[in-house]
Amino acid sequence: MLVLNVDTMNPNVKRIEYAVRGPIVQRAVQIEKELKEGVKKPFTEVIKANIGDAHAMGQKPITFFRQVIALCAYPDLLEDDKFPEDAKNRARRILQACGGGSLGETPLVIRQDVAKYIEKRDSGIPSNPDDIYLSTGASDAIVTMLKLLTSGEGKTRTGVMISIPQYPLYSAALAELAAVQISYYLDEDKCWSLDVNELRRAVKAAREHCNPRALCIINPGNPTGQVQNRQCIEDVIRFAAEEHLFLMADEVYQDNVYMEGCQFHSFKKVLFEMGSEYSSVVELASFHSTSKCYMGECGFRGGYMEVINMDPDVKLQLTKLVSVQLCPSIPGQALLDLVVNPPQPDEPSYATFIKERTANLHILSEKAKMTEQVLNTVPGIHCNPVQGAMYTFPRLTLPEKAINAAKEQEQAPDMFYCMKLLEEMGICLVPGSGFGQRDGTYHFRMTILPATEKLKIVLEKIREFHKRFTEEFS
Amino acid sequence: MLVLNVDTMNPNVKRIEYAVRGPIVQRAVQIEKELKEGVKKPFTEVIKANIGDAHAMGQKPITFFRQVIALCAYPDLLEDDKFPEDAKNRARRILQACGGGSLGETPLVIRQDVAKYIEKRDSGIPSNPDDIYLSTGASDAIVTMLKLLTSGEGKTRTGVMISIPQYPLYSAALAELAAVQISYYLDEDKCWSLDVNELRRAVKAAREHCNPRALCIINPGNPTGQVQNRQCIEDVIRFAAEEHLFLMADEVYQDNVYMEGCQFHSFKKVLFEMGSEYSSVVELASFHSTSKCYMGECGFRGGYMEVINMDPDVKLQLTKLVSVQLCPSIPGQALLDLVVNPPQPDEPSYATFIKERTANLHILSEKAKMTEQVLNTVPGIHCNPVQGAMYTFPRLTLPEKAINAAKEQEQAPDMFYCMKLLEEMGICLVPGSGFGQRDGTYHFRMTILPATEKLKIVLEKIREFHKRFTEEFS
Ligand SMILES: Cc1ncc(COP(=O)(O)O)c(C=O)c1O
Ligand SMILES: Cc1ncc(COP(=O)(O)O)c(C=O)c1O
Repeated sequence: MLVLNVDTMNPNVKRIEYAVRGPIVQRAVQIEKELKEGVKKPFTEVIKANIGDAHAMGQKPITFFRQVIALCAYPDLLEDDKFPEDAKNRARRILQACGGGSLGETPLVIRQDVAKYIEKRDSGIPSNPDDIYLSTGASDAIVTMLKLLTSGEGKTRTGVMISIPQYPLYSAALAELAAVQISYYLDEDKCWSLDVNELRRAVKAAREHCNPRALCIINPGNPTGQVQNRQCIEDVIRFAAEEHLFLMADEVYQDNVYMEGCQFHSFKKVLFEMGSEYSSVVELASFHSTSKCYMGECGFRGGYMEVINMDPDVKLQLTKLVSVQLCPSIPGQALLDLVVNPPQPDEPSYATFIKERTANLHILSEKAKMTEQVLNTVPGIHCNPVQGAMYTFPRLTLPEKAINAAKEQEQAPDMFYCMKLLEEMGICLVPGSGFGQRDGTYHFRMTILPATEKLKIVLEKIREFHKRFTEEFS
Repeated sequence: MLVLNVDTMNPNVKRIEYAVRGPIVQRAVQIEKELKEGVKKPFTEVIKANIGDAHAMGQKPITFFRQVIALCAYPDLLEDDKFPEDAKNRARRILQACGGGSLGETPLVIRQDVAKYIEKRDSGIPSNPDDIYLSTGASDAIVTMLKLLTSGEGKTRTGVMISIPQYPLYSAALAELAAVQISYYLDEDKCWSLDVNELRRAVKAAREHCNPRALCIINPGNPTGQVQNRQCIEDVIRFAAEEHLFLMADEVYQDNVYMEGCQFHSFKKVLFEMGSEYSSVVELASFHSTSKCYMGECGFRGGYMEVINMDPDVKLQLTKLVSVQLCPSIPGQALLDLVVNPPQPDEPSYATFIKERTANLHILSEKAKMTEQVLNTVPGIHCNPVQGAMYTFPRLTLPEKAINAAKEQEQAPDMFYCMKLLEEMGICLVPGSGFGQRDGTYHFRMTILPATEKLKIVLEKIREFHKRFTEEFS
């Protein structure tokens, strides 16, 4: 018998569910292989609309960012005329900050740049570099915060409130930490908005069996694409204060707002504008990343969190904890620095930078609208407006017969649906069950990232499939 | 009261001790600031010999590696005549492997290259790309393996054997996971070699209160600089088989072998050469990294582990676990690919590559010898040969009075010593107590990374200080 087997391994790891790269994605990879080997299918390529990696879906990296990274990696290029002066200056500054002209430890300069970025974003509300922690993508910082918050046993075990539908990193981290997941539901009928009464219901029920200590919010939302209004954020902050909860604001999509009338409000800004009654007591960690927005640089694993009102002794513990696994990758740190300190109006790269950023966001915005429009023309699919982020999470009306057929195969009905869609149409989506949804409802999550022409095909194929599927099982 | 404070926070995180960036290093940073502000000190700069970051200490990155990284980051450079063709080919290959010409997900090609590298290193013993997991530095993979192995409660809680002195990542990870640390002592009188009888003693004692399930070996050793001989590795493998332990071989210093007569033997190779009686049953994970050896690229956070005889179901769980936090940074993956697949003899960059690699290793080798020689001329310091890795862990004879003075200040005696060395000489070392040592013995850990001229100064200053310190407290 092996020392390490599924019976002896860490049971918390076993409990993790991770749909984003689950069976559908594995099957998609297999199908791609089969296509390459010449197996005949009713389609010639698999179109993946399952993960939020913009570059993998064809979005172009921002030129300035990549120029500076190349210069940092290979400083001999500083002699090269082909690079603009502002890119060279930025590279010199980063190399200097990193000590010894090479790539060393987390420099204060980068944390200062992050703080300045936050101040500007939040209309001047001060940010302190000592409150900034760089991370390996936002994922790393989110898991670290959840780790710090987890303690107690049985009824005193830490409970953490997360939205349903959720981004599965949260449930996975809570499972691994054996913390208690407290689910609160977003209101699909009101564009996936957050209702404080639902938060009240969830926390009250949870107090029976655990110790609720944190509330996580994703805004703009993954997988649901909503953008919270200011009133809602104020309500959430008041609720956190009343219920004595640590707030975790996942704001990695802060630039991804498409819908007219919608605007990104940071939790930090709203908190401070609510006055010291709140801003001096509510504990907040907010997260940002280089992976999304107009830059889409998932591969660099850059990110940061800002902590507000954190106990100074806990900050020391946090510093120790992050030191053990060494700092985030230096290219990731460098990229983060560029994101928070992009080309300025008087610099030669400014025009190109603005052009590229605007183009990336504009295209996303168009695709967000198109996705909603086309899906809502399909009888049996209901799609909320994609106000922000990079996803839609439409509701499916599935015929009774299909639900039964799925049950016979011991599959969730939306898994059954998505698997058929993949096999018949070559479209790869993630079933709603992987993100959580109200019992008896069915959804899929789709990214709006495929190139416009491909996205059109995806939407048409879904329309065609949904019609056929509905007929088949009627 | 704050939601998150030192009383309510995760108690496992509180238990972590991490000396490598502890109070000494914090004080060193402070002193540097004071020097900048013009405060007078008996020295003009702080020389840091506390962390294993080669580039921060002046070692030059390998040109070819950085060229390819720059090309991958900014593919427009592929048009540039200044880059050699092999660097361009390598960049094209990596970009293609990463899909869409941009930087996407963990590609099979890189795992294949790692497998080929291992096969070559291990004289043809096969390696399977499906057994390779890329990681964010070796740290990430080590923590992940320890996480998988941890289960049970009370007397059935997983125990993990680690060498003392140890690299504190191990004790930190075990504390965080609330796994049981089982310490086995390396034999300082025999050049920090590993004695199987000591392993037997440790595991026997541990079986009284926990469930020993894994044995970690660091070879070449940090902080002790020893290189294990083949016999020792065979003994360890036999011991692991007898005691039914999962083997974790930390081989991040595999190219850092300096002493004549010493040679690096991988656990994988020895295991397979011992025949199927062992190679078909002993479970092994071995770790490598881009951070050490001749490349020293800590900042890229590249690494991998190879697993042997791992339960296929556990492998699925492992894949799930690593997917949740997304893949390691792509620049890190790219760099790893270059390390395992460097320029070949028929390629234009080969000569420069070999020259740089040889030079880096040669300088380290000279510094290893110099360190041992000089320290052993100091009465009261005993220094084992630095056979490999990048450190020495010399034993200090401290006067009784100094030990008492330290106790009065509630400091470990070697912390007291190192703090005084820092204040008086501007030399930053880590006290042995941060790594573990036999009770009543005192050490410090010093890297051999400062540039040769600086290292000479460090060694002379230690000599001078040790003499003065001994006189002061006699
Ligand atoms: C809501 C949300 N938070 C965090 C992350 C993690 O992002 P990162 O790549 O920065 O780790 C994602 C990535 O998809 C996300 O959607
Ligand atoms: C023995 C040992 N293992 C692992 C590591 C971690 O290396 P990295 O995470 O940078 O690959 C180190 C770093 O110093 C080390 O000394």
